[in-house]
Amino acid sequence: MVDKKRFIAVIGGSECSPREAKLAEEVGRELARQGVILVCGGLGGIMEAACKGASSEGGVTIGILPGGSRQAANPYVQIPIVTGLGEARNVVVVKSAQAIIAIGGGYGTLSEIGHALRNGIPVIGLNTWSLSRNDQSDNSIILAQDPVEAVKKAVGSIKNE
Amino acid sequence: MVDKKRFIAVIGGSECSPREAKLAEEVGRELARQGVILVCGGLGGIMEAACKGASSEGGVTIGILPGGSRQAANPYVQIPIVTGLGEARNVVVVKSAQAIIAIGGGYGTLSEIGHALRNGIPVIGLNTWSLSRNDQSDNSIILAQDPVEAVKKAVGSIKNE
Amino acid sequence: MVDKKRFIAVIGGSECSPREAKLAEEVGRELARQGVILVCGGLGGIMEAACKGASSEGGVTIGILPGGSRQAANPYVQIPIVTGLGEARNVVVVKSAQAIIAIGGGYGTLSEIGHALRNGIPVIGLNTWSLSRNDQSDNSIILAQDPVEAVKKAVGSIKNE
Amino acid sequence: MVDKKRFIAVIGGSECSPREAKLAEEVGRELARQGVILVCGGLGGIMEAACKGASSEGGVTIGILPGGSRQAANPYVQIPIVTGLGEARNVVVVKSAQAIIAIGGGYGTLSEIGHALRNGIPVIGLNTWSLSRNDQSDNSIILAQDPVEAVKKAVGSIKNE
Repeated sequence: MVDKKRFIAVIGGSECSPREAKLAEEVGRELARQGVILVCGGLGGIMEAACKGASSEGGVTIGILPGGSRQAANPYVQIPIVTGLGEARNVVVVKSAQAIIAIGGGYGTLSEIGHALRNGIPVIGLNTWSLSRNDQSDNSIILAQDPVEAVKKAVGSIKNE
Repeated sequence: MVDKKRFIAVIGGSECSPREAKLAEEVGRELARQGVILVCGGLGGIMEAACKGASSEGGVTIGILPGGSRQAANPYVQIPIVTGLGEARNVVVVKSAQAIIAIGGGYGTLSEIGHALRNGIPVIGLNTWSLSRNDQSDNSIILAQDPVEAVKKAVGSIKNE
Repeated sequence: MVDKKRFIAVIGGSECSPREAKLAEEVGRELARQGVILVCGGLGGIMEAACKGASSEGGVTIGILPGGSRQAANPYVQIPIVTGLGEARNVVVVKSAQAIIAIGGGYGTLSEIGHALRNGIPVIGLNTWSLSRNDQSDNSIILAQDPVEAVKKAVGSIKNE
Repeated sequence: MVDKKRFIAVIGGSECSPREAKLAEEVGRELARQGVILVCGGLGGIMEAACKGASSEGGVTIGILPGGSRQAANPYVQIPIVTGLGEARNVVVVKSAQAIIAIGGGYGTLSEIGHALRNGIPVIGLNTWSLSRNDQSDNSIILAQDPVEAVKKAVGSIKNE
């Protein structure tokens, strides 16, 4: 019987600012240092930066791709999962992780935050969406100030199963 | 060649307050009066109330179900689509519509709002989520004050294709 | 409460011979005459011929599309369901039907036959695949000689739910 | 940049005979010896036997699960991918592999063979389905006599991309 590792997803846009990329790369590095397997959507931007960081520290990277070819994966994805599902692959990214770190992000990232919170999967946010309903803040997204804190909170939020 | 009708999705929780149910039922009625086909997730709460309203005015109702059986559809769904996809069916609800009306809603609804905005599908909101990023409001959700206004704005937002 | 109609899927290639198209069109006509709603993958070939036949007799046609745009539907689809799921939409076609009529077909059709039989959904075959395992025929596909017999057997095979 | 390994899927029933399990375990062992990453549906039967074999030789095993929990994975899955997609996950198993080895199998396996051949992904068969259409054999499934030959043919069939 194998020891199943902890899986944490890093979500964010396929295009991002240099500052966001730096955050993502540092998150990737810190996940690898903690022995956590990185799950992401496998493309560029935040996803590529996080995979690059994880790889540089010898971590394992999984990219769950929307299209039909493994060729679309960023060069730091070690385990490409080819879904052909389009955006429905966002659900697979989320469900395959035990916690989520959202960095920046657009509406695709928002959909993933929704799917994660719907499933009771903790979401840690770095410069990402804030939510409110009927003028009341929803504080479900756990805020972090920097990559090391984000990883620490994500690892700490994983439920025993 | 058939005339393809306009399709508008009503999204919201499978549990909802009586006030939200009343809003959803009136939205359903108004959609039917305008000759619009109602798309929804096919279950209870907001979805059932909207289907009930549409049916009462002779409208057509489509329920795109997460589970593997058409038996799970609410009694006002005329066209049950059985996906067995779980929450990934949210993507199908969104993409099958030309505009979305979100009423109240939890995190599943939030995921659908994300998928819709990601696809450039207009979202009209009635007592639903508000979004902001980095302390800046995102005003992509078009606010409506009542069901008639919501339907009017949704119909008006449909892009010619 | 609405009366849920019977749903039967017609599956087959997006390219087909004129003879197969004629079979599919007649199947579509006969389904409409029997008051059955036609489900298909929404594209050309067998799917278009079946929708054309059903429409000509005033039947209802549902097209469950693999891509992200309703514009890809054949002109006889009245209810386009837009999935963006690629081939995974085959599962939705199958599960949304209470019986399947397979006409000719390639490997995509074979995948749908597999999904249907896996789910206990009856499959009627017109010039389609034959299956065997370990030199033993598998007779799960119910053979029909012509479109009227195919529809009769499909309608008769629907289980009460 | 990482070196992307070769990925081969082993498909077959979640219940199987002891003889089939032995074949699957030996296939798993041989894949690991060849440095190939094993992809499967993550459950019992053929999938578990293949993962057990691969693990015993230090190979990497990926299980793409139909349900919503990683707890459903067999104990030899090292990388559980949680889809919640039901049978639509069969498409993800197939597309994530560069070649498929089918062992025995029921209708779910048949659906995977259809999806693989539809995508031009080579299928190697060990005691699995035979196909014919209109009384003509379809020889697309490459037959193998034993596990070592199956792996050899599968590895040899991988296209350069």
